[in-house]
Amino acid sequence: MLSDFVMGKTTDKDERKRALAACRERLAAQQQEIKAKKLGVLVLLEGWGAAGKGSLLGEVINEIDPRSFKVHAIAAPTEEERRKPFLWRYFVKTPEKGLFSFLDSGWLGETVRQHLAGELDTAAMTRRIGSINTFERQLADDGTLLVKCFLNITRKEQAKRIARLEEDKDTAWRVSGEDERENERYDEYRDAFDAALTATSTTYAPWHVVDAGERAEARLALMTILTGAIDAALAAPRAPAAVPQNRFPLLPMPRLAEVALDKELDKGEYNDRLEAAQKRLRELHNRLYRKKVPLILVYEGWDAAGKGGNIKRVAAALDPRGFEVLPIASPEPHELAHHYLWRFWRRLPKDGHVAIFDRSWYGRVMVERIEGFCAQNDWQRAYNEINEFEAELSAWGAVILKFWIHIDPETQLARFHERQANPEKQWKITDEDWRNREKWPAYEEAVDEMLQKTSTTYAPWHVIESRDKKYARVKTLELIVGALEEVL
Amino acid sequence: MLSDFVMGKTTDKDERKRALAACRERLAAQQQEIKAKKLGVLVLLEGWGAAGKGSLLGEVINEIDPRSFKVHAIAAPTEEERRKPFLWRYFVKTPEKGLFSFLDSGWLGETVRQHLAGELDTAAMTRRIGSINTFERQLADDGTLLVKCFLNITRKEQAKRIARLEEDKDTAWRVSGEDERENERYDEYRDAFDAALTATSTTYAPWHVVDAGERAEARLALMTILTGAIDAALAAPRAPAAVPQNRFPLLPMPRLAEVALDKELDKGEYNDRLEAAQKRLRELHNRLYRKKVPLILVYEGWDAAGKGGNIKRVAAALDPRGFEVLPIASPEPHELAHHYLWRFWRRLPKDGHVAIFDRSWYGRVMVERIEGFCAQNDWQRAYNEINEFEAELSAWGAVILKFWIHIDPETQLARFHERQANPEKQWKITDEDWRNREKWPAYEEAVDEMLQKTSTTYAPWHVIESRDKKYARVKTLELIVGALEEVL
Repeated sequence: MLSDFVMGKTTDKDERKRALAACRERLAAQQQEIKAKKLGVLVLLEGWGAAGKGSLLGEVINEIDPRSFKVHAIAAPTEEERRKPFLWRYFVKTPEKGLFSFLDSGWLGETVRQHLAGELDTAAMTRRIGSINTFERQLADDGTLLVKCFLNITRKEQAKRIARLEEDKDTAWRVSGEDERENERYDEYRDAFDAALTATSTTYAPWHVVDAGERAEARLALMTILTGAIDAALAAPRAPAAVPQNRFPLLPMPRLAEVALDKELDKGEYNDRLEAAQKRLRELHNRLYRKKVPLILVYEGWDAAGKGGNIKRVAAALDPRGFEVLPIASPEPHELAHHYLWRFWRRLPKDGHVAIFDRSWYGRVMVERIEGFCAQNDWQRAYNEINEFEAELSAWGAVILKFWIHIDPETQLARFHERQANPEKQWKITDEDWRNREKWPAYEEAVDEMLQKTSTTYAPWHVIESRDKKYARVKTLELIVGALEEVL
Repeated sequence: MLSDFVMGKTTDKDERKRALAACRERLAAQQQEIKAKKLGVLVLLEGWGAAGKGSLLGEVINEIDPRSFKVHAIAAPTEEERRKPFLWRYFVKTPEKGLFSFLDSGWLGETVRQHLAGELDTAAMTRRIGSINTFERQLADDGTLLVKCFLNITRKEQAKRIARLEEDKDTAWRVSGEDERENERYDEYRDAFDAALTATSTTYAPWHVVDAGERAEARLALMTILTGAIDAALAAPRAPAAVPQNRFPLLPMPRLAEVALDKELDKGEYNDRLEAAQKRLRELHNRLYRKKVPLILVYEGWDAAGKGGNIKRVAAALDPRGFEVLPIASPEPHELAHHYLWRFWRRLPKDGHVAIFDRSWYGRVMVERIEGFCAQNDWQRAYNEINEFEAELSAWGAVILKFWIHIDPETQLARFHERQANPEKQWKITDEDWRNREKWPAYEEAVDEMLQKTSTTYAPWHVIESRDKKYARVKTLELIVGALEEVL
């Protein structure tokens, strides 16, 4: 895309002025329209060092109410960012619906830099391109508009600008070793940028190359691209996105109705096996920490199935400084204004740490599906999106285990009655629990579909028979221990 | 506190078992009671290296539902943490009402370590103690229970434990150079801990020294302290906290009624002065960034006074990578579950960056006061709390400027009508604006009190006459430029 891009085209000055005025007027109106239509706009500005990303960005946002955008300057990853998956710092910066997010460089620049530093072999590079395209597609499917621009300058122009910046002590700090390296190895960088641009230019998130040799021209080009893209997105009614065929390694799972719930443990065996598994898990947690392996445990299950007590037995075996239980409630307003996976990306553990999700992103294909909190197309797409999300976590190195804590309706009813009769447990039972209970068949159908479609080799579901809570706790702990022993 | 603390007391084994069982039972019940009474509990565990903080913490949280607590392990500050005020990483970890936050070491350990590393001179140490006591008092006044424990071991015991940990490769990583240093310079550390414990032991957040030489005894001691403190907090009805006398350097401020609104600028002068001030601000922003000085701008004002346009003119002069506009709406549920300043601590800029608050923590003494969203005692205390908060930011190095964008009721009415008549501006006017307008006298009284009580030398208020928006914009910009020139 860069090697055949023609540089140096100019517009007549009056013509440019007229066109720019039209763009500015349009953008001023568009910020209200995107708010009204809840269109989130992610603008990614990539380009050569010293191409003028910062100044151009300044000119564009000048046309927008400062309450309508966020600007994120992406530098080399911090310590915290390095301990999270590659996409983490980008996903958490995706825009709220109705607002702009501007990224001053991002995943393209980072990838090309890593590539040229020899940090990505062929396999890693292929996976990386896949991650980026998946990430962008997920956003686009959720209705976010992606506008990606690459600011292009010639080697000569870049050298000139670097020299000029270095002359002034107020601007010299802006020149990085990276900029100088780019200029020295310009052709090599151009080829790497070119390849990465081509590999990540998709229908839903195409790249736009901008000639940044002449500032006024670059400004007009950028404004034209941006306003054009927004107009197109505003004009098109949002069509349901495709629900792709499964491409993940799925494990065979039983239907819930086939699961026998008569498994039990007597008190003695329970105590022995529980203690042994906890002891082993304690040791493994130490090694997990040293080897910086993240562990992600997902708990879902029927109300009163015994999730809380089960989680407690696992947590008791972990070093308190290295795990977190994340109770997931209904999303708050700022969470609803983002992609539904956003709030889970934000809660990912650091490497070497354990995150126990007490309910999770699977709410999308259960409560949100059944209560109609999202469109049919949304939850139907979610199976694939969730498999993609977990594949990303797995590629990062995470061990992922998911538990469906299972009981039958009769057991639930007995436990509900028991809770209501016990003053110390009454807080545990709400009207909503009774309402959900009435929807048991709908939930069972949803859970069955979820288990069939999202139990992958790298993030398997386990149905935990929990009519006997002792049995359930031991089974869960032993599954975790087994999975960790395999990995460590 | 440490030097005269008697170590080595033991309890009869059966007695200990009975007492521990009673504590465990009590704590199990307390977690529901604190939820019901919305009591947040912050447990700070400090102590010698290798005193067993982690294991003891593990035993305590074992008695609590994992959904009811968060554990925060505090290590040396990260790059991000070093770019924020000292208290930042602690304030953002304060508990939600109804839940526990456990800190595995914290502000005491950090302070003593800095002290012994020679990083705090006498003046800095005095300020630090003041910051800590203020922070703890603010939390206590808000109803949070603070339980602070120091785990004490002898020099001999510490040496033994360090040696034991180092023997095993699974635990050797837990021993830090800091632990070894402590043991070598034990007496020096003990005196420093002692002094810091004494200086931060207050009625509202007393220190408890725990003999950690024998694990079972330490566990019982810790559980006894914790359950006792919770019982005391649950038993006492929350009394209104004291509203202290002002101790901050206040600037004389006019009453709003005295402010003449006839200031104007003609178009030509406006353009010239605006451009000059923006140019100068652009240069100063560069220097701010290099010198790592944070700038905090607070905008408050009447509806339709012209806040948005004013902010836009300031933002336009700033490098987009170095500032953020933070529109402050009503708090969301998770924000309401914390101290009202929590959401602003979370939004503080990094050093060298600019944060523009479009509405702010002053909501406490305006809308929350007038609408009754908080108790009278709460907003009356807030003037002092806000002065303390801003003093903390100022000590960190922040330049703070606060603007009251001012108009009269007639101007507001004219602008409301104009907005309603203009289809492109209708979105700007809501029913709430009309309702607020009816409460003008109450707001005026609140604003006057706020200006009188919170305009300090280090964080001054400026009333910006905004009947002529041009005049207002230029005045604001020139004030910012003036303040920065004084500092840089």
